[in-house]
Amino acid sequence: MTRHYRVLIDCRDEKGLVYKISKTFFDFGLNVEKNREFVDAQNGKFFMRSEVSGKFDPDALEAELKLVLPKDAVIRLAEPRPKRVVIMATKESHCLGDILIRHEAGELEAQIVGVVSNYEILKGLVERFDIPYICVSHEGLQRAEHEELILEAIDSFGEIDYIVLAKYMRILTPEFVSRFEERIINIHHSFLPAFIGANPYKQAYDRGVKIIGATAHFVNNNLDEGPIIAQGTIPVDHAMDWRQMQSAGRDVEKIVLAKALKLALEDKIFVYANKTVIFD
Amino acid sequence: MTRHYRVLIDCRDEKGLVYKISKTFFDFGLNVEKNREFVDAQNGKFFMRSEVSGKFDPDALEAELKLVLPKDAVIRLAEPRPKRVVIMATKESHCLGDILIRHEAGELEAQIVGVVSNYEILKGLVERFDIPYICVSHEGLQRAEHEELILEAIDSFGEIDYIVLAKYMRILTPEFVSRFEERIINIHHSFLPAFIGANPYKQAYDRGVKIIGATAHFVNNNLDEGPIIAQGTIPVDHAMDWRQMQSAGRDVEKIVLAKALKLALEDKIFVYANKTVIFD
Amino acid sequence: MTRHYRVLIDCRDEKGLVYKISKTFFDFGLNVEKNREFVDAQNGKFFMRSEVSGKFDPDALEAELKLVLPKDAVIRLAEPRPKRVVIMATKESHCLGDILIRHEAGELEAQIVGVVSNYEILKGLVERFDIPYICVSHEGLQRAEHEELILEAIDSFGEIDYIVLAKYMRILTPEFVSRFEERIINIHHSFLPAFIGANPYKQAYDRGVKIIGATAHFVNNNLDEGPIIAQGTIPVDHAMDWRQMQSAGRDVEKIVLAKALKLALEDKIFVYANKTVIFD
Amino acid sequence: MTRHYRVLIDCRDEKGLVYKISKTFFDFGLNVEKNREFVDAQNGKFFMRSEVSGKFDPDALEAELKLVLPKDAVIRLAEPRPKRVVIMATKESHCLGDILIRHEAGELEAQIVGVVSNYEILKGLVERFDIPYICVSHEGLQRAEHEELILEAIDSFGEIDYIVLAKYMRILTPEFVSRFEERIINIHHSFLPAFIGANPYKQAYDRGVKIIGATAHFVNNNLDEGPIIAQGTIPVDHAMDWRQMQSAGRDVEKIVLAKALKLALEDKIFVYANKTVIFD
Repeated sequence: MTRHYRVLIDCRDEKGLVYKISKTFFDFGLNVEKNREFVDAQNGKFFMRSEVSGKFDPDALEAELKLVLPKDAVIRLAEPRPKRVVIMATKESHCLGDILIRHEAGELEAQIVGVVSNYEILKGLVERFDIPYICVSHEGLQRAEHEELILEAIDSFGEIDYIVLAKYMRILTPEFVSRFEERIINIHHSFLPAFIGANPYKQAYDRGVKIIGATAHFVNNNLDEGPIIAQGTIPVDHAMDWRQMQSAGRDVEKIVLAKALKLALEDKIFVYANKTVIFD
Repeated sequence: MTRHYRVLIDCRDEKGLVYKISKTFFDFGLNVEKNREFVDAQNGKFFMRSEVSGKFDPDALEAELKLVLPKDAVIRLAEPRPKRVVIMATKESHCLGDILIRHEAGELEAQIVGVVSNYEILKGLVERFDIPYICVSHEGLQRAEHEELILEAIDSFGEIDYIVLAKYMRILTPEFVSRFEERIINIHHSFLPAFIGANPYKQAYDRGVKIIGATAHFVNNNLDEGPIIAQGTIPVDHAMDWRQMQSAGRDVEKIVLAKALKLALEDKIFVYANKTVIFD
Repeated sequence: MTRHYRVLIDCRDEKGLVYKISKTFFDFGLNVEKNREFVDAQNGKFFMRSEVSGKFDPDALEAELKLVLPKDAVIRLAEPRPKRVVIMATKESHCLGDILIRHEAGELEAQIVGVVSNYEILKGLVERFDIPYICVSHEGLQRAEHEELILEAIDSFGEIDYIVLAKYMRILTPEFVSRFEERIINIHHSFLPAFIGANPYKQAYDRGVKIIGATAHFVNNNLDEGPIIAQGTIPVDHAMDWRQMQSAGRDVEKIVLAKALKLALEDKIFVYANKTVIFD
Repeated sequence: MTRHYRVLIDCRDEKGLVYKISKTFFDFGLNVEKNREFVDAQNGKFFMRSEVSGKFDPDALEAELKLVLPKDAVIRLAEPRPKRVVIMATKESHCLGDILIRHEAGELEAQIVGVVSNYEILKGLVERFDIPYICVSHEGLQRAEHEELILEAIDSFGEIDYIVLAKYMRILTPEFVSRFEERIINIHHSFLPAFIGANPYKQAYDRGVKIIGATAHFVNNNLDEGPIIAQGTIPVDHAMDWRQMQSAGRDVEKIVLAKALKLALEDKIFVYANKTVIFD
């Protein structure tokens, strides 16, 4: 049986890494369909992503790669498969709806296993697509209590690969975040690091900027400070009040979030030093 | 003699302003070649810029406009003429050189009357264009002393309309700035308000952004916080170190600065509430 | 009762038009919330769009405007109201789905009254949104016969304002087009006038371009040659085959189509000389 | 002595190419600073560009690569060095001036050995930079005669690597072009393949497009149809006549041309099938 795999390797840089990796691929009789490498000379780090195919034993390949690569090497062998994704949202439908349409069209290497929201508002939209929707209202609850219920809701969908915060407007605790390290993708409605925090469109309007943007990033414990995956911008002008900026910004938000999600689903992202290396 | 004028009016908003202004133009027999208006409903402010032509007495027009408009109206009548511009720079030539080429091509409604720098480095380039170059080294001087000499240098060029900071890498004092209110245009090498302060490209690299930018703005007393005139962005990726970002960013810087300068030269900018209204 | 109206006027240019129009607004006691004008000096044409509000009789306003304006003046008074829109599509869901999501979110000044397609493929998606879907297969039919049935389907939805071709992949006859003059909006999957005709992504790939685009335009009798409303572009590179370009292009297509549709719905478009004047 | 080389290889695709190449590098003790590869699966073509350094004999490296690679392999070993460039221009200074400023700043891996023009207009500008300027007027001459003189002028500068047509507004004969195959870079003032031929800005204006662009390409025998290296676009609107589009377009032209020139100077371009593979 011919297998297709993505091989992602990162380790400290040293001479001959590409040689050793490509020799291993060659020895296993693999077709290398795509190769991308990056050496961060300053930090002495090496990154490589290959798409290979052939009749081979993935465990044996991984073992052999381990053998020839430096001890610190992180080796990921990923077979293309629909990743299991939970979407979290609050009230706005543009990012969520965009993902649902792409999902339905088979554009995403993903199975949307469920949507969790702190409001009922988006229930109708999601159920139109026959996807489970769980509303966990935050009203009257402590943050920890609310998050406990959110986690229960997520867990009810079974094993998951990624959580997508498609305009989920509440802050997650470090405990929550640490459970899904580098697996929560958020869309922030500004061109980070500009306008961190609440209502960035209002901030942008008040500052009088001529361009606004959106940022998709992995969530870590510092709000809006996780590794950036993708960003986009559009021009604005004095004639737009902040609600018009918000409205215009939605188009950027959804495109940028979808772009970041695809990169994650297709195993094209490395994270290190709070940054991303992306082989798109 | 047929005169061409730009008429810029801003005042508190009220009913009938366009009617009163256009009636005045009509009564004076003017051709209205272009009209742009903006009402900031939230703040009750009205802005209008017209390009008119005809045989008329500008003073009489201004007097009549004063008569029909609210007391607080600011009325500017500007005849297109080469504005007198001093450029300040430090070591980098891309913004300065770009302006010199445009100037030589007659693309700018400006006369570059001189260049002031704290280094000798750009002297050769500037003098190639037969433009006076004054080097005022800051070495061994207090900020106030240095600025005093800078002012002398500027004054030696006679009356001026605008100062362009084409990568002038020193901070100006409030005294200096207040002397040229809304007449100093700076190019900041980041997408403000992201990366205020020193070496924004290094900051951008460290943060791992996927887009960088540049911002042209009027200088006020708060560093990098004056009214924004124009901004631009370009994509970057993990493979670029900060020097490569800097190199790529130069193209945005010079285009954005030239754009802002043109807007100023062509009397297309209103400033209020630390923001700009631009009729381009 | 306070009424809100959009007033769109175009006529041959002459002195005093803004004066006469704004005087009329003033005499009717209207608030002018927004004004945009454009004079095409070369062709002696004047365009103006105003947003006005007040207690007034629209018929009287129109009559008065007719009185003061040149004989050739075309005057449109449009009250903001959900316009009735039929969408036509074939197999791809990205443009259709994007409009459905926006529609459901109340983002469009429109009521989607129905979808017509020559395939059953998109029926499920559309019916999720409780919108009527009529499939009119073209198989075994002459073009005229097929179009006859399409027209019947459209007519079954009652009066309509606009038809949106959201990737409807069949050519319409001049008869069809002339029935809906300046009321059919198409999205063409290239940066027109590049790559007119079939499979523009394949053409773009074969030509080796570095940027691809999409064009929304009114449909006239010459395929892909109607007045352009909006365009967008994105970078591509050698590593993308035409299917990847197609996939990337979809994001531009849907954004550009939605932008054009909004401009139409909000009465922001003038058409003349096979071009558009857009006051956005 | 440590040498730095760029190694560019293209050949038919087969298994193990990266292995063989990286093994060769390893056997020669080279540091691989950068690797980029591309497999055109459809056409069975392999492209690779590496930046290597070390103490080695380039001829021996080339010989070894020849030995291990398929017979059809084209192997280029290029040492970074200022390439010798002639610029041709006509009347407009924006592209030429931009290159001169970059050249003076040391931004280009090039030596501008001379400028050839069919007018005297740009002589002053070029000589400000102490670069030889030869005017070869086309007046009263047959195309062949004129080109003969152009060639003489170019030859007078000695050996050259590239000719840059920085808005040189005359058509070159196939004889001229074939002498400098893949070594003439032109900037076309439209988003090719839209608006081939004369005055593309006028064409763009007449068509009513909402975006204009520029294209840098290698010149081949079919006017405006050579392999595209880089493209750029900017938005325009109905209020711009074609001269304003031309003026706005100049900024894109110069940036796109400079980008293409840099790619060529840094040996980052492969040409095949009338397209470019670019490892930037």
